[in-house]
Amino acid sequence: EKKAKDASKATTMKITGRVHLDGWNFTNNTPGIAAFNNPADPMDPENNFEFRRLRLGFAGDIKDNMLYKLEFDFDDANDPTIKDAYIGWNDLPVFQTLLIGNQKRPLGMDHLNSSRFNWFLERPLVIEAFNQDARRLGIAAYGVSEEETWNWRYGIYELENIANDSGYTGDAGQYSINGRLAGTPWYDETSGGRGYLHLGIADMWAKPDGDPSASASNNNEARFRTRPEARTGSVRWLDTGAIAGATWFNTLGLEAMLTLGSFSVVSEYQVTSVGRGATGPDLTFEGGYVEAGYFLTGEYQPINRRTGTIERIKPLENFFWVNTCDGETGGGWGAWQVIARYSYLDLSDGNVTGGDERNFTAGLVWWWNSHARMQFNYVHAQIDDRGPIDGYTGGRSDIFGARFSVDF
Amino acid sequence: EKKAKDASKATTMKITGRVHLDGWNFTNNTPGIAAFNNPADPMDPENNFEFRRLRLGFAGDIKDNMLYKLEFDFDDANDPTIKDAYIGWNDLPVFQTLLIGNQKRPLGMDHLNSSRFNWFLERPLVIEAFNQDARRLGIAAYGVSEEETWNWRYGIYELENIANDSGYTGDAGQYSINGRLAGTPWYDETSGGRGYLHLGIADMWAKPDGDPSASASNNNEARFRTRPEARTGSVRWLDTGAIAGATWFNTLGLEAMLTLGSFSVVSEYQVTSVGRGATGPDLTFEGGYVEAGYFLTGEYQPINRRTGTIERIKPLENFFWVNTCDGETGGGWGAWQVIARYSYLDLSDGNVTGGDERNFTAGLVWWWNSHARMQFNYVHAQIDDRGPIDGYTGGRSDIFGARFSVDF
Amino acid sequence: EKKAKDASKATTMKITGRVHLDGWNFTNNTPGIAAFNNPADPMDPENNFEFRRLRLGFAGDIKDNMLYKLEFDFDDANDPTIKDAYIGWNDLPVFQTLLIGNQKRPLGMDHLNSSRFNWFLERPLVIEAFNQDARRLGIAAYGVSEEETWNWRYGIYELENIANDSGYTGDAGQYSINGRLAGTPWYDETSGGRGYLHLGIADMWAKPDGDPSASASNNNEARFRTRPEARTGSVRWLDTGAIAGATWFNTLGLEAMLTLGSFSVVSEYQVTSVGRGATGPDLTFEGGYVEAGYFLTGEYQPINRRTGTIERIKPLENFFWVNTCDGETGGGWGAWQVIARYSYLDLSDGNVTGGDERNFTAGLVWWWNSHARMQFNYVHAQIDDRGPIDGYTGGRSDIFGARFSVDF
Repeated sequence: EKKAKDASKATTMKITGRVHLDGWNFTNNTPGIAAFNNPADPMDPENNFEFRRLRLGFAGDIKDNMLYKLEFDFDDANDPTIKDAYIGWNDLPVFQTLLIGNQKRPLGMDHLNSSRFNWFLERPLVIEAFNQDARRLGIAAYGVSEEETWNWRYGIYELENIANDSGYTGDAGQYSINGRLAGTPWYDETSGGRGYLHLGIADMWAKPDGDPSASASNNNEARFRTRPEARTGSVRWLDTGAIAGATWFNTLGLEAMLTLGSFSVVSEYQVTSVGRGATGPDLTFEGGYVEAGYFLTGEYQPINRRTGTIERIKPLENFFWVNTCDGETGGGWGAWQVIARYSYLDLSDGNVTGGDERNFTAGLVWWWNSHARMQFNYVHAQIDDRGPIDGYTGGRSDIFGARFSVDF
Repeated sequence: EKKAKDASKATTMKITGRVHLDGWNFTNNTPGIAAFNNPADPMDPENNFEFRRLRLGFAGDIKDNMLYKLEFDFDDANDPTIKDAYIGWNDLPVFQTLLIGNQKRPLGMDHLNSSRFNWFLERPLVIEAFNQDARRLGIAAYGVSEEETWNWRYGIYELENIANDSGYTGDAGQYSINGRLAGTPWYDETSGGRGYLHLGIADMWAKPDGDPSASASNNNEARFRTRPEARTGSVRWLDTGAIAGATWFNTLGLEAMLTLGSFSVVSEYQVTSVGRGATGPDLTFEGGYVEAGYFLTGEYQPINRRTGTIERIKPLENFFWVNTCDGETGGGWGAWQVIARYSYLDLSDGNVTGGDERNFTAGLVWWWNSHARMQFNYVHAQIDDRGPIDGYTGGRSDIFGARFSVDF
Repeated sequence: EKKAKDASKATTMKITGRVHLDGWNFTNNTPGIAAFNNPADPMDPENNFEFRRLRLGFAGDIKDNMLYKLEFDFDDANDPTIKDAYIGWNDLPVFQTLLIGNQKRPLGMDHLNSSRFNWFLERPLVIEAFNQDARRLGIAAYGVSEEETWNWRYGIYELENIANDSGYTGDAGQYSINGRLAGTPWYDETSGGRGYLHLGIADMWAKPDGDPSASASNNNEARFRTRPEARTGSVRWLDTGAIAGATWFNTLGLEAMLTLGSFSVVSEYQVTSVGRGATGPDLTFEGGYVEAGYFLTGEYQPINRRTGTIERIKPLENFFWVNTCDGETGGGWGAWQVIARYSYLDLSDGNVTGGDERNFTAGLVWWWNSHARMQFNYVHAQIDDRGPIDGYTGGRSDIFGARFSVDF
C-alpha cells in the first residue's frame, strides 16, 4: 500500500495490491464428475497450483469531491482483466456517493465482501450462480443513514461482464436494475462492535436478450452456472446454459449475520425467477447457505456499517518466529478461526436441468497478521438432478484447497 | 497523480492515469454504411458502452539529465497496449531534448494534443488517416527557441505500429523521417495567453515496402484508413487498403489556430502523395478540418508554447453539488464550451478508391473541474466515391457519442 | 524508483521499472541457419528492433517481518508475463528468508544476476539451456553466514514455467529440488571489494513426466534448448525436443569469478544427466563459458556478498553533454567496459541430437550513469552435430546487437 496525499494537489493516488496463491487437490470423484467437468472428453478435474489473484489497484480523489479507482488482475498473466474501474462523486445531495463504471452489483453479501476478508476460499454456490463475477458496467448510488444503522445501494448495470475486453458492444441492450438495503439494527457500540445483528435484502430485475444461441457474440445473459466452491477449469459443473426465450429474470436475496464475540453465523437465501413468454413456463431456481466461524484466539469479525460488509481482522498477537536476544527462538501464534459451511443450489426446473448441488465445507483461517493469512478448506460436494451428461445425472467429489494470501 | 521526488535519489517516479468511458449510438444509417462497416456480412455498426482509455503512466528522471516514460492502455483489458515508452535526455546541446522509443510522430496538431484536452471525442478524419495512432518507435529531437516563440521536433521512425507487440521484426526496414515547426508569432503575454495565433508546418517522408499483400505479417504500411470520427469496430469505413507497389509517400501538414479570449478556431490541412514506380501513376490524397469553440462561462483555451499543443482548461468555477450548512443544496456549474467541426477526407484517386467523407460535428464540453469533464458529440457523416462494396459507393450516418473522463 | 515507507503503516511499497530497447542484425548466415531458425519453411532470422524488457515491479514489507514482490513484463504488450511474484518472511530462525511464489531457481550465476547488471545482451548458451527463463513457482530459503563469506539458497519448484498463465494445472506433478552454495573466500575489505574471488556450486534434481509428446498441454519438461545468445524468434536453434521416457534429470553447476580492480573474469560449467529407464541409455549434455571484462575508465565490478551476484556499476564520471556558462559545451564520458566471451553447449548425445554450439562474443558496455547504459555485442556462432534439418547438421552466423537500457 502506498499513499500520496497533498492538500495542494488536484488529484491523489493510493496504490494497493493483493496476492492469493492457491493449491487445489481433486482426488476423490465419482464417475459423473468427469462428465460434468469436461463433457466433450470426460476427465476428472486436474490439481492446480496457481495465482488466484495478482491484483494492483490505483485509487484516489479528484478535487473537489470526485474519486476514481482502477484495478487490474493478472491472475492470468497473458490476459489481464479489469476489476473495479470507475469514477464518481462523494457528498452529493440525494445520491450521497455516485459511481459510474465497472463495480460490484449489490446482490449477495458474500460477493460484496472482499476476497481479502471472506472466510472461505471460494464463494457459495448460489452467490456465484446468480451474480457471476459480481462486477458490471453501470451507474449506482451508495448511501448510509445518519447513525450508520442502515446503508443502501442501487443502480442500473449492463448484464454482460466486460472484465476481458473493457467494453460492451451490441444493440441488444441487456441490463439489470439492482438495489440492496442492509443494516445493523443491533450493534453493540460499547464493545466496539463485538456484537451485532446484520440484516439485508437485495433484488435484481434483469432484461436478457433471450437469444437461444449460447455461442452468439453477445450472449443471452440468462444463464446460471457455478464451480463447486473450488477452482476447477472453465466448464462449470452446474450450468443451465443460456435459457432460450428468456425475456426477464428476477433475483431476490436475503441476508442475515449474527456476531457474538468470537462467534459469528451468516446465512443467505436467493431465489431467481425466469420469464420465458411463449417459449415455456416460468422457471424458478434457488439456493442458500449457512456458515459459522469461531476464533480460538479471541478475535472477532468486525463489520463495516457504512457498506454492510465484513471488515479486516486484527489478530491480538501476530504470527512471527524469530531469534531472540538470549539465543532462543520466540514467536506468536496469530489468529486461528475454525469455520464450517453448508451450501445448496438448485438449477433444475422444468426442461432446464442445470443440476442441484449440496456442499459441506470445513476449514481453518490462520491470520498471520492484519494483511496476511493462510486458509485451508475441505469441500464435500454432492451433485444430483443434472440433465444427463454421458449418462450421469449426479456425482460426488472430495476437494482440498489451501491459500497463501497477502494484501498491501 | 502521484509524485516522488527527492534530490538525493538517482531516479524519480510520477504515476498518472486517465479513464475515458464512452457511449456511442448508431441508429440512423443508409444501407451503404452496413456494407462499409462489415463488407463480409453487411451489418450496421452496433452501439457500444466501453472504456475508450484506461491508462496508467510511469515517468520520471534519472540523474543527471535523463528521463523515462512508460505508459500502458488497458482499453482492451485482455490485450494491453503500450503508448509512450521512451528514454531520453534533457538539456542537450544542439538537440535540446532527445527521446528514443515509442513516441508520437509530429504530424497533425490534433494528434499531438492530448486526448485529455482535445475538444471532440475522436480526432478528425485526415489526422487519423495519415498518422494512424500517431506513436511509432523512433528517435527524435525536441527543441524550443529562447523566447518560446518557436518550437520544433524532428526524427526518424519505424513505419509499423508496435503498440501490440512491443517490437518490430522484419528485414523490410520501413521508416519515415518527420519534422514539424510550430510557433505563436502573436501571443498576448499581458493577458496570460488569452489571445494568440498558432501556426505550424509538418512533413513526413516515408519508405513503405510496397508489398501488395495486405495480409503479410509485416504489412506494407502504405495504407490510409479511418473511422468516421466515432468508435466503430475494427473495419474502417474509408480504407485505401495497402497500396501495391508503393515505394514512397510524403505527407505535408499545415496548422493554424487563433484564440481570442473565450473563442478559438483551429484548422489543419494535409496532403499525401504516394509514389508507385512502374505499378501506376502517383496518387494524391488530402483532407482537412476547421473547428471552432466558445466558452459560455468565460474560460479560454491555453496553449503550451514549448510543445505547440493545447493545454488543460481550468474552470473559473468547478462543478459541484453539495448540502450546505443551512440545509439547502449549493453548487457550481463548471465550464461549458460549445464546439463545431467540419471535416473532410478524400482517399480516392486513380484506381485506389478508399472513398471520401465529409463530416459535420456539433458538441458540448462540460468541464467539471481541471481533471474531469463530460463530452457530447453529434456527428453527421457523408461518404461518397468509395469503391463499390456490395454495390454501394456512398452512405450517410448520424451518430451520437458521449464521454465521461477523468485524469489523475 | 519510488518509495513509500512509514513506520506506522502496516505495509510499504516501492515501485521500480526497467526499459531495455534492443536492435539486432542478422545478415551473415550459412544455409543451415535458415533451416534451424524455421524448420517448417527455412528462413534466415529477421532483423528486429524491439523492447526486450518493459518491466514494472511493486515490492514492499508487511508487518512484522513479511515481504512481497510483484513484477510484470510488457515486452510483448498484448501478453504481459509475470516475473518475480512472491510473498515471504525475513529474519526467520533456521531458514533466514523464506519465499513462496514465482522466483529464480538457483542454477547458474549468470541467471541469478540481474539483466540490469549483466555485461552481455543475452545469457550464455548453457545458462539458458539448462534453466530456461529461470523463474518457477516454488518455495525456497535464502541464507547468509554471519561474516557474509558464504550464502546459500535451496528450495523445491514446479518444473513448468507459469510466466504466461500465472498457474500450473495438471496431475503430473513435475518438480525439481535445487540448491546453491556460493561465497567469496577472498574479499578485499580494505579496497571496498575491488578484489575478490567468488566460488559457487549448484545442483538441480528434477522429476519430469517423461511424456513423449512435446505438444501435450502439460509438456514433458525434460527439454533443453536455447537461442544463439541473440534475440531470434521463438524457435531455438539448438533443441533436444521433449525427451521421451525421461524419468529424472540432474544438473550440476560450478561457478568462479575473480576480480582484480578493473579486470574481472567469470567462468561457469554445467552438466546435465537425463535418466530414461527402459526407453534408452542415460544421456549427458554439458556446456560452459568464460568471459572477461575490463573497465578502461577505472571502475570495477562489485559483488553482493549476501546473494552471490554482481552489483550495480557506479561510473566515476557520468556521461553528460551540456552547454556550459561560458557558451562552450562540456561533458563527461561515463564508464567504458570492454568484454569478451567464449561459450559452448553440447546438446547431442545418443539418439538425441539437439546440436552443439560454440560462440565467441566481443562487446562494449557504455555506462552513462548508475541507472543507464548502452551495450554493443558482436556474436560469432558455430553450430555442429545437429540432427539434420532440411539436410543441414551445422551452420555459422554473425550477429550484431545493441541495447539502450535504463532502470528506475
